[in-house]
Parts: sequence; C-alpha cells; structure tokens
Amino acid sequence: MNVRILTERELRHLVPLDLAAIDAAERAFRALGEGRAIQPPVLALEIAPRNAEVDIKTAYIDGIPQLAIKASSGFFDNPARGLPSLSGFMAVLSAETGRVEAVLLDNGYLTDLRTAAAGALAARTLARTDARSAGVLGTGLQARLQIEALKRVRPLEKVLVWGRRADAAQAYAAEMTQCLGIPVETRDSAAAVVREADIVVTTTPSREPIVQADWLHAGQHVTAMGSDAPYKNEIAPAALARATRIVCDRIAQSLTLGELRPAIAAGCLSSPPPTVELGAILCGNATGRTSDRDITLCDLTGTGAQDTAIAAHALALANAAGLGQEIDA
Amino acid sequence: MNVRILTERELRHLVPLDLAAIDAAERAFRALGEGRAIQPPVLALEIAPRNAEVDIKTAYIDGIPQLAIKASSGFFDNPARGLPSLSGFMAVLSAETGRVEAVLLDNGYLTDLRTAAAGALAARTLARTDARSAGVLGTGLQARLQIEALKRVRPLEKVLVWGRRADAAQAYAAEMTQCLGIPVETRDSAAAVVREADIVVTTTPSREPIVQADWLHAGQHVTAMGSDAPYKNEIAPAALARATRIVCDRIAQSLTLGELRPAIAAGCLSSPPPTVELGAILCGNATGRTSDRDITLCDLTGTGAQDTAIAAHALALANAAGLGQEIDA
Repeated sequence: MNVRILTERELRHLVPLDLAAIDAAERAFRALGEGRAIQPPVLALEIAPRNAEVDIKTAYIDGIPQLAIKASSGFFDNPARGLPSLSGFMAVLSAETGRVEAVLLDNGYLTDLRTAAAGALAARTLARTDARSAGVLGTGLQARLQIEALKRVRPLEKVLVWGRRADAAQAYAAEMTQCLGIPVETRDSAAAVVREADIVVTTTPSREPIVQADWLHAGQHVTAMGSDAPYKNEIAPAALARATRIVCDRIAQSLTLGELRPAIAAGCLSSPPPTVELGAILCGNATGRTSDRDITLCDLTGTGAQDTAIAAHALALANAAGLGQEIDA
Repeated sequence: MNVRILTERELRHLVPLDLAAIDAAERAFRALGEGRAIQPPVLALEIAPRNAEVDIKTAYIDGIPQLAIKASSGFFDNPARGLPSLSGFMAVLSAETGRVEAVLLDNGYLTDLRTAAAGALAARTLARTDARSAGVLGTGLQARLQIEALKRVRPLEKVLVWGRRADAAQAYAAEMTQCLGIPVETRDSAAAVVREADIVVTTTPSREPIVQADWLHAGQHVTAMGSDAPYKNEIAPAALARATRIVCDRIAQSLTLGELRPAIAAGCLSSPPPTVELGAILCGNATGRTSDRDITLCDLTGTGAQDTAIAAHALALANAAGLGQEIDA
C-alpha cells in the first residue's frame, strides 16, 4: 500500500491561497450544515511544564474520499531556540478503508491556509457585496493571510491595520501594500480601524476584549478568528449583543473556545444564544445578512471538517501533479 | 528538519515483542503512577455510515523525549475487500519543540505490540511468580501475542485455549504449540479454561460477560484486555466483585470503556469502585497481590502513555540502526 509523503515546500507550491482553497472551506461548511459531517470534539493536550499545547482535530465528511487527522502544536518556548512556536501535520486516511493514503508534513501551513480561507468564506457569505475597505486587528501571519484571502472575494480598495506594536503595524502596512497592490494604512487605535472599515477581521490572541459595541456601524461585517481557547476574547460582550446576526463556524466550539463564552457569561447573550452556523446559511437552512444595514459577526474557532476538506484538496492536487514521495508501507 | 519515515516491515524487524517492549510499557505505567504523564481523554470518531471508527490517543511523559499521536482505525467492511479491518499509524513529535521527528506507518503493529506488552506487565506485577499455566479466551491476534508476551515473564508449562469457533481454537493450539514450544490445548468451554489456569487472559470483543464468579479460584490472576468500548464486557459483575484486588490501566477509562462500567451498573461494585491503577502499584503507592491466595484482576483499555512509550522505544531503535527513510521537511 503506497503512502504519499508531502513536505511543506511541496505543499506551499501545490496549494495556494486561492478561490479553490476557499471553495474547499465551503465544502466543509456545507457538509456541516447538511449534517454530512461527523466531527468529534477537539482533543487538547496541554503540556504546562513545556509551555506547550497540541490540538488534534478530525472529521469525516460524506462525499469526500479521505479524512484528515490534524495536529497543531504550539510550543511557546521555541522562539528562544530559533524555531517557530507553531507547527503541525496532517495524516490523510481513506474514508473507505481507513488506510493511510498520505502524510502532509506541512508544519502547520495547511492550517494557516484553511483558517484564512474560512475567513474569506465568512465574508463571501455575510459581508455586503460592495464592501470596499477592510480593517485588521493584529499584525501576525493570519492578519496577512486573512486580508489576502478576503481580497479574492470582495472588491477591496483600502486596508487599515492596528496592532499593539506600532512598528509591527508599520511593517505590515509597507509589506501588504506591496503584496496586495492597494493602499494599506495604519491607524492609531483599534477603534479608528473598526469605525472606518466595511469589513473587520480580528486576528489577535487577546484575553481582554478589544472591539467595543459603539465602534460598530450599520452594514458592517466582522470576522473574529483570534479566539480558539477558553481564556481568549477579542469582542466585547455588548458588541456581540449589538450584532444583527451572530454566526459561528461551530456553535458547540464557540460556546467553549470562542466569543459566545464571555458574552453569555457577561449576561449580554441569552443561553442558548441567538446564533446560527455558517454551514446552515450556506445550505439555506438559516438566513445571514438580510439588509445592507445589518451588522453581521462571524466567530471562527477552526473545525476538523476544514482540515479534512483542505487535506483532500491538497492530496488531489498532489496526485494530479505526481508530487511527493511514495513510500511502500 | 528531517523526518524519519518507518514502514510496518521495518518496525516489525526493529521492534520485537521482547522484554524491552514490556519495559517500555512499564515506563508508561510508572509515569502515570508518579503523575509524570499528561494524558487527555481518547478522541473517538465513530463513522456509522462506513461501519468504522478511528480512535486517537496521545500522552506527554516527563522523561521521554518524544510524544506520540496514535490513530487506530477499525473499518469493519474491509474484510469483504480483502483488507484487514484494523490499521493505524503513529506520529512522533519532539516533546521539546513539537516538531515531527518521525512517522511510523505501522498499520497498527505497534498498538498490537504495546497491548500485549501491557498484558505481560500486568501479570509480571500481579500474578504469582510460580504461575505455570495460562488460559486464553479468544483465538485472534491478541490471543497469540498476549501469551507470547506472558511467557517472557512467567515460567509457563502449559496453555489452554477456548474460542467461540472450535476450529479456530484447534488452529490456535496447533500453531501456538509450535511457536511457544510448550503444550497448547483446547478446552470445550470458557469455564474449563478459567477453572484450570493459573493466569487467564481474556481477548474477546464480547458484549455479554463470559467469565463467571464461581469459575475463579484462589491464587489466580486475570487480565481482561478485550473491552475498550462502552458496549463491551467480558467479565461478569459478580466475578469482578469476587476479585481480592481490581487493578486498571486507567480508572477513568475503565469506568467508561472497560469492565468497571457494567459491574457498577449491576450494583456489584460501589461507585467509586475499590480499584487502583497499575502504575500506582508499580511505583509503590498502592498494593497489588498480598498473598498467594489473592485473586487479582487487571482491566486494560489501552492508554496513550503506552503509545508514547513504545513510539519512543521504536524511534530509538530506528535511530541506532539507521533504519527508515529521512525526508527533508
């Protein structure tokens, strides 16, 4: 039985952040919405003595010939060793026989990609089609990838950025102006970014809410993708309550790892909260934006279904290109 | 960063079912006993439409330089396709940096091995040192491996076997007489095996209890390794209650997946039940057998700590032998 091994270099070459990657995310969310996905809770290994954590996600999707087992690792003492904190891999199993078909030694690249693709999908589903400006909070890798993906689904003419460190925001603006071919400008405060932008993407690991209710304005869309742990929180409870429509990638995860948790705890949202899943909107079982004045907010925590969809997409591209090393296992 | 890829063939050659494998199991259980292991609950992906399941286990062990992420798959329609039902793989991450060090494409071999090694460890810890006869219920792969491993820790002179299918038991007896070099005889009933044997190992996927209380006798040791799911049960509740000492690999798992569950449900054991973990005995925090007349019973459900220990053991052997293929990832 041959197993295909693909490296990060090969995967970066094979699987760009393009519409096909966003469509792969859409397949994952449609499957969740149509009840065609079986997705168990995340397995979290927290290694306090190493200042580290490993999260494992998986999902079976009826209609996709493989399933992924994806591990994401964060070893936060790595930078002192000259290594990136985050890494990971995906194993790709046949959904028919369970045999390992491929191992994607991506060091986390496909997770970064599918996370950005889900952000673009959220905007494609929920943001006004005439949204012209995007604002991003945070200046890290996802701040870059989210806006790169967003530009593929909305006619952006300007990007605004705020980060805790002004020099990082300056560097982001210079670099992304080059990369995107449109003006990318810094703002002095998160408030200024959120007040001005048609679409806001929050990409920080903040433990205290940043986005406040009175910064939001009619017609806006917000994607909150930073919180993925029970101690993180980017959006103030009152800001969630102000949204016309709150959407989650997975309600069960948002209740424990995402923005629903602090909003319910603060009493700003009822329990169960008034929210729907992105997949339900995509397959017509729930409404998203209903007017140009709605404020939509989408909380993304990351799902195993996305991992299975991007892994199958990557493997199809690798098989077509004949890339990767075959091991007779 | 190089990643070592090892195939099933290489791993079978490198990692035999020997005392070193049993010692690796002991390292895992000592770590659990000493609180040096961090072991989250099993992630179970049940794929009813495919008649399949995938279980994912992992554990960090202070003192072992790697951690394993282990997937075991059971795709029960595979035999109709000419493929084995069970398969799996292990990914081996550096416990210091989280980077993938190796992928063990073992198709489940190391899981089989570490499961048998844990059975032998249970007997080494709990059975009378003068135990001369072993009885096995079931005739599958673990029925073979458990007895093979057991023979390395106790001076067996005879093995008795019972299985639901008489022809399978006959085949087992013939094959294992050759393999072990001691007489292996069939018996007509599970009762006859249990009544006669000094050590009993139960290896069936039974959903109804097989071993009854009045079959047990003073001085006996029983290892129950078949049950690893909420619907399985090999040992009658009253038989558990009759044991002088009940030992588990992991109490939390035995309560949900193992033999404690039906015994408590039947009211034959109190809740919490009078039981200790194998690791607590190994590190001197609990007593096991206290006399030659005690009846000891050990329930094994399979732990991520065992996977980490056997994966690190396998990788050390592979590194020493220079076996496996290096991929520059």
